[in-house]
Amino acid sequence: MWYVSSCRAVTQSAPEQGNFPPHHLTHHHRHHRPHPHLRHHARPHHLHHQEAGLHTAQVTPCMCPLFSCQWEGHLEVVVPHLRQMHRVDILQGAEIVFLATDMHLPAPADWIIMHSCLGHHFLLVLRKQERHEGHPQFFATMMLIGTPTQADCFTYRLELNRNHRRLKWEATPRSVLECVDSVITDGDCLVLNTSLAQLFSDNGSLAIGIAITATEVCSSEAEM
Amino acid sequence: MWYVSSCRAVTQSAPEQGNFPPHHLTHHHRHHRPHPHLRHHARPHHLHHQEAGLHTAQVTPCMCPLFSCQWEGHLEVVVPHLRQMHRVDILQGAEIVFLATDMHLPAPADWIIMHSCLGHHFLLVLRKQERHEGHPQFFATMMLIGTPTQADCFTYRLELNRNHRRLKWEATPRSVLECVDSVITDGDCLVLNTSLAQLFSDNGSLAIGIAITATEVCSSEAEM
Repeated sequence: MWYVSSCRAVTQSAPEQGNFPPHHLTHHHRHHRPHPHLRHHARPHHLHHQEAGLHTAQVTPCMCPLFSCQWEGHLEVVVPHLRQMHRVDILQGAEIVFLATDMHLPAPADWIIMHSCLGHHFLLVLRKQERHEGHPQFFATMMLIGTPTQADCFTYRLELNRNHRRLKWEATPRSVLECVDSVITDGDCLVLNTSLAQLFSDNGSLAIGIAITATEVCSSEAEM
Repeated sequence: MWYVSSCRAVTQSAPEQGNFPPHHLTHHHRHHRPHPHLRHHARPHHLHHQEAGLHTAQVTPCMCPLFSCQWEGHLEVVVPHLRQMHRVDILQGAEIVFLATDMHLPAPADWIIMHSCLGHHFLLVLRKQERHEGHPQFFATMMLIGTPTQADCFTYRLELNRNHRRLKWEATPRSVLECVDSVITDGDCLVLNTSLAQLFSDNGSLAIGIAITATEVCSSEAEM
Protein backbone atom coordinates (compact mmCIF):
# COMPACT_ATOMS: atom_id res chain seq x y z
CA MET A 1 0.00 0.00 0.00
CA TRP A 2 1.58 3.22 -1.10
CA TYR A 3 -0.96 5.77 -0.02
CA VAL A 4 0.31 8.19 2.53
CA SER A 5 -1.33 9.84 5.48
CA SER A 6 0.53 13.03 6.28
CA CYS A 7 1.96 15.72 4.07
CA ARG A 8 3.98 18.90 4.09
CA ALA A 9 3.20 21.11 1.12
CA VAL A 10 5.55 23.54 -0.62
CA THR A 11 4.25 25.48 -3.58
CA GLN A 12 6.42 27.09 -6.21
CA SER A 13 5.70 28.51 -9.62
CA ALA A 14 7.95 28.20 -12.63
CA PRO A 15 8.41 30.88 -15.29
CA GLU A 16 7.43 30.33 -18.90
CA GLN A 17 10.24 28.62 -20.75
CA GLY A 18 10.77 27.62 -24.39
CA ASN A 19 7.69 26.30 -26.13
CA PHE A 20 5.89 25.23 -22.97
CA PRO A 21 3.10 27.12 -21.30
CA PRO A 22 3.75 28.30 -17.77
CA HIS A 23 3.12 25.51 -15.33
CA HIS A 24 2.61 25.46 -11.66
CA LEU A 25 4.26 22.86 -9.53
CA THR A 26 3.22 21.74 -6.10
CA HIS A 27 5.25 19.31 -4.05
CA HIS A 28 3.86 17.27 -1.23
CA HIS A 29 6.72 15.61 0.59
CA ARG A 30 5.30 12.63 2.37
CA HIS A 31 6.60 9.79 4.43
CA HIS A 32 5.45 6.25 4.66
CA ARG A 33 6.52 3.08 6.38
CA PRO A 34 8.86 1.52 5.37
CA HIS A 35 9.80 3.64 2.35
CA PRO A 36 9.82 7.41 2.04
CA HIS A 37 7.41 8.70 -0.58
CA LEU A 38 7.12 11.91 -2.49
CA ARG A 39 3.92 13.17 -3.97
CA HIS A 40 4.29 15.47 -6.89
CA HIS A 41 1.64 17.53 -8.64
CA ALA A 42 2.14 18.44 -12.25
CA ARG A 43 0.09 20.24 -14.81
CA PRO A 44 0.32 19.01 -18.38
CA HIS A 45 2.71 20.21 -21.04
CA HIS A 46 0.73 20.84 -24.19
CA LEU A 47 2.11 19.28 -27.32
CA HIS A 48 2.34 20.86 -30.72
CA HIS A 49 1.17 18.47 -33.40
CA GLN A 50 3.12 20.11 -36.18
CA GLU A 51 6.38 19.57 -34.33
CA ALA A 52 5.66 16.07 -33.13
CA GLY A 53 7.10 14.35 -36.17
CA LEU A 54 10.43 16.17 -36.22
CA HIS A 55 12.32 13.98 -33.79
CA THR A 56 11.65 10.47 -34.93
CA ALA A 57 15.10 9.91 -36.46
CA GLN A 58 17.88 8.83 -34.08
CA VAL A 59 20.79 11.27 -33.99
CA THR A 60 24.13 11.10 -32.23
CA PRO A 61 24.70 11.68 -29.43
CA CYS A 62 21.05 12.28 -28.47
CA MET A 63 18.18 14.74 -28.47
CA CYS A 64 15.76 16.10 -25.92
CA PRO A 65 13.17 13.39 -25.12
CA LEU A 66 10.36 15.95 -24.97
CA PHE A 67 8.09 17.11 -27.74
CA SER A 68 8.45 20.67 -28.99
CA CYS A 69 12.18 20.87 -28.35
CA GLN A 70 14.87 20.61 -30.98
CA TRP A 71 17.76 20.52 -28.53
CA GLU A 72 20.52 18.01 -29.17
CA GLY A 73 23.41 17.22 -26.87
CA HIS A 74 25.32 14.53 -25.05
CA LEU A 75 23.42 12.02 -22.91
CA GLU A 76 25.31 13.32 -19.87
CA VAL A 77 23.71 16.76 -20.16
CA VAL A 78 20.11 15.67 -20.78
CA VAL A 79 19.28 16.00 -17.07
CA PRO A 80 20.57 19.59 -16.74
CA HIS A 81 18.79 20.42 -20.02
CA LEU A 82 15.46 19.07 -18.72
CA ARG A 83 15.94 20.87 -15.41
CA GLN A 84 17.03 24.21 -16.78
CA MET A 85 15.16 24.53 -20.06
CA HIS A 86 11.95 22.67 -19.21
CA ARG A 87 11.86 23.10 -15.44
CA VAL A 88 11.23 19.39 -15.01
CA ASP A 89 11.50 18.58 -11.32
CA ILE A 90 13.44 15.68 -9.85
CA LEU A 91 11.94 13.47 -7.15
CA GLN A 92 14.18 11.31 -4.97
CA GLY A 93 13.41 8.00 -3.32
CA ALA A 94 12.83 4.34 -4.03
CA GLU A 95 9.06 4.78 -4.26
CA ILE A 96 7.25 7.99 -5.09
CA VAL A 97 3.70 9.07 -5.87
CA PHE A 98 3.27 11.41 -8.82
CA LEU A 99 0.02 13.36 -9.01
CA ALA A 100 -0.96 14.51 -12.51
CA THR A 101 -3.55 17.28 -12.27
CA ASP A 102 -6.05 18.63 -14.82
CA MET A 103 -6.49 15.30 -16.55
CA HIS A 104 -9.56 16.75 -18.28
CA LEU A 105 -7.45 19.07 -20.45
CA PRO A 106 -7.68 18.24 -24.15
CA ALA A 107 -5.21 15.96 -25.92
CA PRO A 108 -2.40 16.12 -26.84
CA ALA A 109 -0.77 16.80 -23.48
CA ASP A 110 2.20 15.47 -21.49
CA TRP A 111 2.82 15.24 -17.77
CA ILE A 112 6.51 14.79 -16.97
CA ILE A 113 8.67 14.16 -13.92
CA MET A 114 12.21 12.98 -13.36
CA HIS A 115 12.87 10.33 -10.76
CA SER A 116 16.32 9.98 -9.24
CA CYS A 117 16.90 6.49 -7.94
CA LEU A 118 19.62 3.80 -7.72
CA GLY A 119 22.25 6.14 -9.12
CA HIS A 120 20.32 7.02 -12.26
CA HIS A 121 17.70 9.47 -13.50
CA PHE A 122 14.44 8.20 -14.94
CA LEU A 123 11.84 10.20 -16.84
CA LEU A 124 8.16 9.44 -16.39
CA VAL A 125 6.05 10.50 -19.36
CA LEU A 126 2.26 10.44 -19.04
CA ARG A 127 0.72 11.35 -22.38
CA LYS A 128 -2.87 12.07 -23.33
CA GLN A 129 -3.32 11.38 -27.01
CA GLU A 130 -6.11 10.63 -29.47
CA ARG A 131 -5.10 7.56 -31.43
CA HIS A 132 -8.74 7.22 -32.50
CA GLU A 133 -10.43 10.53 -33.17
CA GLY A 134 -12.64 11.66 -30.33
CA HIS A 135 -11.31 8.95 -28.00
CA PRO A 136 -8.32 10.22 -26.02
CA GLN A 137 -6.26 7.67 -24.15
CA PHE A 138 -3.54 7.98 -21.53
CA PHE A 139 -0.15 6.33 -21.99
CA ALA A 140 2.42 6.15 -19.20
CA THR A 141 5.99 4.95 -19.53
CA MET A 142 9.34 5.32 -17.83
CA MET A 143 12.52 6.11 -19.74
CA LEU A 144 16.06 5.80 -18.37
CA ILE A 145 18.29 8.76 -19.03
CA GLY A 146 21.03 6.35 -20.03
CA THR A 147 21.82 3.72 -22.63
CA PRO A 148 19.59 0.75 -23.57
CA THR A 149 22.11 -1.59 -21.90
CA GLN A 150 21.83 0.37 -18.67
CA ALA A 151 18.02 0.41 -18.99
CA ASP A 152 17.94 -3.39 -19.12
CA CYS A 153 19.24 -3.43 -15.56
CA PHE A 154 16.02 -2.01 -14.10
CA THR A 155 12.33 -2.73 -13.69
CA TYR A 156 9.80 0.02 -13.08
CA ARG A 157 6.31 -0.32 -11.67
CA LEU A 158 3.41 2.08 -12.13
CA GLU A 159 0.41 1.63 -9.86
CA LEU A 160 -3.04 3.19 -9.75
CA ASN A 161 -5.25 2.54 -6.74
CA ARG A 162 -8.70 4.00 -6.12
CA ASN A 163 -12.38 3.11 -5.78
CA HIS A 164 -11.64 -0.52 -4.86
CA ARG A 165 -9.69 -0.96 -8.07
CA ARG A 166 -6.00 -1.39 -8.61
CA LEU A 167 -3.98 -1.47 -11.81
CA LYS A 168 -0.26 -2.27 -11.89
CA TRP A 169 2.12 -2.20 -14.82
CA GLU A 170 5.68 -3.53 -14.56
CA ALA A 171 8.26 -3.45 -17.32
CA THR A 172 11.86 -2.69 -18.21
CA PRO A 173 12.37 1.03 -18.82
CA ARG A 174 13.40 2.15 -22.30
CA SER A 175 16.39 4.36 -22.92
CA VAL A 176 15.84 8.01 -23.83
CA LEU A 177 17.99 7.19 -26.87
CA GLU A 178 14.86 5.42 -28.12
CA CYS A 179 12.01 7.70 -29.02
CA VAL A 180 9.21 7.93 -26.46
CA ASP A 181 6.79 8.34 -29.37
CA SER A 182 7.56 4.87 -30.66
CA VAL A 183 7.08 3.31 -27.21
CA ILE A 184 3.64 4.89 -27.05
CA THR A 185 2.80 4.06 -30.67
CA ASP A 186 3.77 0.45 -29.99
CA GLY A 187 1.43 0.51 -26.98
CA ASP A 188 4.20 -1.04 -24.87
CA CYS A 189 3.28 0.94 -21.76
CA LEU A 190 0.47 1.47 -19.28
CA VAL A 191 -2.59 2.34 -21.35
CA LEU A 192 -5.77 3.85 -19.89
CA ASN A 193 -8.92 4.71 -21.75
CA THR A 194 -10.94 7.69 -20.55
CA SER A 195 -13.30 5.55 -18.44
CA LEU A 196 -10.45 3.95 -16.50
CA ALA A 197 -8.65 7.26 -16.10
CA GLN A 198 -11.80 8.72 -14.58
CA LEU A 199 -12.27 5.76 -12.23
CA PHE A 200 -8.72 6.23 -10.93
CA SER A 201 -8.83 10.03 -10.81
CA ASP A 202 -9.80 12.12 -7.83
CA ASN A 203 -11.15 15.54 -8.67
CA GLY A 204 -9.38 15.56 -12.03
CA SER A 205 -6.05 14.35 -10.66
CA LEU A 206 -4.44 10.98 -11.23
CA ALA A 207 -2.05 9.63 -8.56
CA ILE A 208 0.56 7.27 -10.01
CA GLY A 209 2.69 5.22 -7.64
CA ILE A 210 6.16 4.70 -9.10
CA ALA A 211 8.82 2.24 -7.97
CA ILE A 212 12.14 1.27 -9.54
CA THR A 213 14.11 -1.85 -8.77
CA ALA A 214 17.43 -3.15 -10.08
CA THR A 215 17.43 -6.60 -11.66
CA GLU A 216 19.65 -9.13 -9.91
CA VAL A 217 22.01 -9.81 -12.81
CA CYS A 218 22.84 -6.16 -13.26
CA SER A 219 23.17 -5.55 -9.53
CA SER A 220 26.02 -8.05 -9.39
CA GLU A 221 27.59 -6.69 -12.58
CA ALA A 222 27.55 -3.19 -11.14
CA GLU A 223 29.59 -4.40 -8.17
CA MET A 224 32.34 -5.78 -10.39
CA MET B 1 4.73 -15.69 -9.07
CA TRP B 2 1.95 -17.80 -10.46
CA TYR B 3 3.66 -19.60 -13.32
CA VAL B 4 3.82 -23.29 -12.87
CA SER B 5 6.43 -25.85 -13.80
CA SER B 6 4.75 -29.21 -14.15
CA CYS B 7 1.47 -30.20 -15.73
CA ARG B 8 -0.84 -33.12 -16.33
CA ALA B 9 -2.97 -32.65 -19.44
CA VAL B 10 -6.46 -34.01 -20.06
CA THR B 11 -8.13 -33.22 -23.37
CA GLN B 12 -11.84 -33.37 -24.01
CA SER B 13 -14.03 -32.09 -26.78
CA ALA B 14 -17.51 -30.70 -26.34
CA PRO B 15 -20.37 -31.14 -28.82
CA GLU B 16 -21.92 -28.20 -30.62
CA GLN B 17 -24.61 -26.64 -28.47
CA GLY B 18 -27.09 -23.84 -29.07
CA ASN B 19 -25.71 -20.91 -31.04
CA PHE B 20 -22.10 -21.60 -30.17
CA PRO B 21 -19.58 -23.21 -32.49
CA PRO B 22 -17.99 -26.44 -31.31
CA HIS B 23 -15.15 -25.71 -28.99
CA HIS B 24 -12.30 -27.80 -27.81
CA LEU B 25 -11.27 -27.73 -24.20
CA THR B 26 -7.94 -28.74 -22.81
CA HIS B 27 -7.24 -28.83 -19.10
CA HIS B 28 -3.82 -28.69 -17.62
CA HIS B 29 -4.09 -29.42 -13.94
CA ARG B 30 -1.07 -27.94 -12.31
CA HIS B 31 0.23 -27.56 -8.81
CA HIS B 32 2.16 -24.77 -7.26
CA ARG B 33 3.47 -23.85 -3.87
CA PRO B 34 1.61 -22.81 -1.78
CA HIS B 35 -1.61 -22.78 -3.80
CA PRO B 36 -2.85 -25.32 -6.29
CA HIS B 37 -3.26 -23.93 -9.78
CA LEU B 38 -5.25 -24.99 -12.75
CA ARG B 39 -4.44 -24.06 -16.29
CA HIS B 40 -7.34 -24.02 -18.65
CA HIS B 41 -7.34 -23.67 -22.42
CA ALA B 42 -10.39 -22.25 -24.12
CA ARG B 43 -11.24 -21.39 -27.64
CA PRO B 44 -13.44 -18.37 -28.20
CA HIS B 45 -17.21 -18.28 -28.42
CA HIS B 46 -18.15 -16.21 -31.43
CA LEU B 47 -20.71 -13.52 -30.81
CA HIS B 48 -23.59 -12.61 -33.03
CA HIS B 49 -23.93 -8.88 -33.42
CA GLN B 50 -27.60 -8.93 -34.28
CA GLU B 51 -28.42 -10.63 -30.98
CA ALA B 52 -26.12 -8.59 -28.81
CA GLY B 53 -28.68 -5.95 -27.97
CA LEU B 54 -31.47 -8.29 -26.94
CA HIS B 55 -30.48 -8.77 -23.32
CA THR B 56 -29.75 -5.32 -22.06
CA ALA B 57 -32.96 -4.97 -20.01
CA GLN B 58 -32.93 -6.50 -16.52
CA VAL B 59 -35.56 -9.18 -16.01
CA THR B 60 -36.56 -11.16 -12.96
CA PRO B 61 -35.21 -13.46 -11.77
CA CYS B 62 -32.29 -13.42 -14.20
CA MET B 63 -31.05 -14.32 -17.64
CA CYS B 64 -28.09 -16.16 -19.07
CA PRO B 65 -25.01 -13.91 -18.80
CA LEU B 66 -23.74 -15.04 -22.21
CA PHE B 67 -24.41 -13.47 -25.58
CA SER B 68 -26.57 -15.39 -28.05
CA CYS B 69 -28.72 -17.07 -25.41
CA GLN B 70 -32.24 -16.04 -24.49
CA TRP B 71 -32.51 -18.38 -21.50
CA GLU B 72 -34.09 -16.97 -18.36
CA GLY B 73 -34.27 -18.68 -15.00
CA HIS B 74 -33.54 -18.39 -11.31
CA LEU B 75 -30.08 -17.32 -10.16
CA GLU B 76 -29.66 -20.69 -8.45
CA VAL B 77 -29.80 -22.55 -11.76
CA VAL B 78 -27.47 -20.31 -13.77
CA VAL B 79 -24.49 -22.59 -13.03
CA PRO B 80 -26.20 -25.79 -14.26
CA HIS B 81 -27.44 -23.84 -17.28
CA LEU B 82 -23.91 -22.68 -18.17
CA ARG B 83 -22.53 -26.17 -17.59
CA GLN B 84 -25.17 -28.11 -19.49
CA MET B 85 -26.20 -25.75 -22.28
CA HIS B 86 -22.94 -23.96 -22.96
CA ARG B 87 -20.43 -26.58 -21.76
CA VAL B 88 -18.64 -23.95 -19.70
CA ASP B 89 -16.10 -25.70 -17.50
CA ILE B 90 -15.57 -25.06 -13.80
CA LEU B 91 -12.10 -24.69 -12.36
CA GLN B 92 -11.52 -25.13 -8.63
CA GLY B 93 -8.91 -23.49 -6.43
CA ALA B 94 -7.91 -20.22 -4.85
CA GLU B 95 -5.66 -19.27 -7.76
CA ILE B 96 -5.92 -20.56 -11.30
CA VAL B 97 -4.36 -19.83 -14.67
CA PHE B 98 -6.73 -19.57 -17.61
CA LEU B 99 -5.24 -19.91 -21.08
CA ALA B 100 -7.27 -18.33 -23.88
CA THR B 101 -6.18 -19.74 -27.24
CA ASP B 102 -6.60 -18.42 -30.78
CA MET B 103 -6.47 -14.77 -29.74
CA HIS B 104 -5.99 -13.84 -33.39
CA LEU B 105 -9.58 -14.83 -34.30
CA PRO B 106 -11.66 -11.88 -35.46
CA ALA B 107 -13.86 -9.85 -33.12
CA PRO B 108 -16.43 -10.26 -31.70
CA ALA B 109 -15.46 -13.31 -29.64
CA ASP B 110 -15.78 -14.42 -26.00
CA TRP B 111 -13.60 -16.75 -23.94
CA ILE B 112 -15.42 -17.99 -20.85
CA ILE B 113 -14.63 -20.05 -17.75
CA MET B 114 -16.31 -20.58 -14.40
CA HIS B 115 -14.22 -20.45 -11.27
CA SER B 116 -15.45 -22.15 -8.11
CA CYS B 117 -13.93 -20.58 -5.05
CA LEU B 118 -14.84 -19.55 -1.48
CA GLY B 119 -18.26 -21.17 -1.70
CA HIS B 120 -19.31 -19.32 -4.85
CA HIS B 121 -19.08 -19.56 -8.61
CA PHE B 122 -17.48 -16.77 -10.61
CA LEU B 123 -17.60 -16.31 -14.37
CA LEU B 124 -14.57 -14.93 -16.20
CA VAL B 125 -15.45 -13.25 -19.47
CA LEU B 126 -12.66 -12.28 -21.87
CA ARG B 127 -14.13 -10.45 -24.83
CA LYS B 128 -12.53 -9.32 -28.08
CA GLN B 129 -14.51 -6.41 -29.46
CA GLU B 130 -14.05 -3.53 -31.87
CA ARG B 131 -15.14 -0.35 -30.10
CA HIS B 132 -13.30 1.62 -32.77
CA GLU B 133 -13.55 0.11 -36.22
CA GLY B 134 -10.48 -1.82 -37.24
CA HIS B 135 -9.02 -1.67 -33.72
CA PRO B 136 -10.10 -4.70 -31.70
CA GLN B 137 -9.51 -4.60 -27.97
CA PHE B 138 -9.66 -7.26 -25.26
CA PHE B 139 -11.80 -6.75 -22.17
CA ALA B 140 -11.61 -9.10 -19.18
CA THR B 141 -13.89 -9.06 -16.17
CA MET B 142 -15.13 -11.37 -13.44
CA MET B 143 -18.81 -11.73 -12.57
CA LEU B 144 -20.19 -13.40 -9.44
CA ILE B 145 -23.01 -15.82 -10.04
CA GLY B 146 -24.83 -14.24 -7.12
CA THR B 147 -26.35 -10.95 -6.03
CA PRO B 148 -24.60 -7.55 -6.07
CA THR B 149 -24.50 -7.62 -2.25
CA GLN B 150 -22.70 -10.95 -2.34
CA ALA B 151 -20.35 -9.66 -5.04
CA ASP B 152 -19.26 -6.77 -2.81
CA CYS B 153 -17.72 -9.34 -0.46
CA PHE B 154 -14.99 -10.30 -2.91
CA THR B 155 -11.98 -8.96 -4.78
CA TYR B 156 -10.68 -10.56 -7.93
CA ARG B 157 -7.27 -10.18 -9.50
CA LEU B 158 -6.31 -10.79 -13.12
CA GLU B 159 -2.61 -10.96 -13.93
CA LEU B 160 -0.65 -11.16 -17.17
CA ASN B 161 3.05 -11.90 -17.03
CA ARG B 162 5.38 -12.33 -19.99
CA ASN B 163 8.36 -10.82 -21.78
CA HIS B 164 9.55 -8.95 -18.66
CA ARG B 165 6.20 -7.21 -18.42
CA ARG B 166 3.46 -7.66 -15.87
CA LEU B 167 -0.05 -6.21 -15.78
CA LYS B 168 -2.37 -6.68 -12.81
CA TRP B 169 -6.00 -5.63 -12.44
CA GLU B 170 -7.82 -5.84 -9.11
CA ALA B 171 -11.47 -4.98 -8.55
CA THR B 172 -14.72 -6.05 -6.96
CA PRO B 173 -16.58 -8.54 -9.17
CA ARG B 174 -19.94 -7.53 -10.59
CA SER B 175 -23.05 -9.63 -10.18
CA VAL B 176 -24.36 -11.57 -13.19
CA LEU B 177 -27.62 -9.73 -12.46
CA GLU B 178 -25.82 -6.75 -13.99
CA CYS B 179 -25.17 -6.99 -17.68
CA VAL B 180 -21.62 -7.92 -18.65
CA ASP B 181 -22.06 -5.70 -21.73
CA SER B 182 -22.45 -2.60 -19.58
CA VAL B 183 -19.32 -3.46 -17.55
CA ILE B 184 -17.35 -3.68 -20.77
CA THR B 185 -18.98 -0.61 -22.30
CA ASP B 186 -18.11 1.33 -19.12
CA GLY B 187 -14.52 0.11 -19.53
CA ASP B 188 -14.52 -0.88 -15.85
CA CYS B 189 -12.38 -3.97 -16.43
CA LEU B 190 -8.96 -5.05 -17.63
CA VAL B 191 -8.53 -3.51 -21.08
CA LEU B 192 -5.84 -4.57 -23.55
CA ASN B 193 -5.19 -3.14 -26.97
CA THR B 194 -3.90 -5.46 -29.66
CA SER B 195 -0.25 -4.50 -29.07
CA LEU B 196 -0.41 -5.36 -25.38
CA ALA B 197 -2.33 -8.56 -26.03
CA GLN B 198 0.40 -9.64 -28.45
CA LEU B 199 3.15 -8.78 -25.97
CA PHE B 200 1.50 -10.98 -23.35
CA SER B 201 0.54 -13.80 -25.72
CA ASP B 202 2.59 -16.86 -26.43
CA ASN B 203 1.94 -18.46 -29.81
CA GLY B 204 -1.55 -16.91 -30.00
CA SER B 205 -2.53 -17.86 -26.45
CA LEU B 206 -3.01 -15.51 -23.52
CA ALA B 207 -2.44 -16.88 -20.00
CA ILE B 208 -4.48 -15.02 -17.38
CA GLY B 209 -3.74 -15.64 -13.71
CA ILE B 210 -6.92 -15.37 -11.64
CA ALA B 211 -7.24 -15.07 -7.88
CA ILE B 212 -10.26 -14.37 -5.69
CA THR B 213 -10.16 -13.14 -2.11
CA ALA B 214 -12.91 -12.38 0.39
CA THR B 215 -12.96 -8.88 1.87
CA GLU B 216 -12.51 -8.77 5.63
CA VAL B 217 -15.87 -7.20 6.49
CA CYS B 218 -17.83 -9.84 4.59
CA SER B 219 -15.71 -12.69 5.95
CA SER B 220 -16.79 -11.79 9.48
CA GLU B 221 -20.42 -11.29 8.39
CA ALA B 222 -20.43 -14.71 6.81
CA GLU B 223 -19.46 -16.23 10.15
CA MET B 224 -22.38 -14.63 11.96
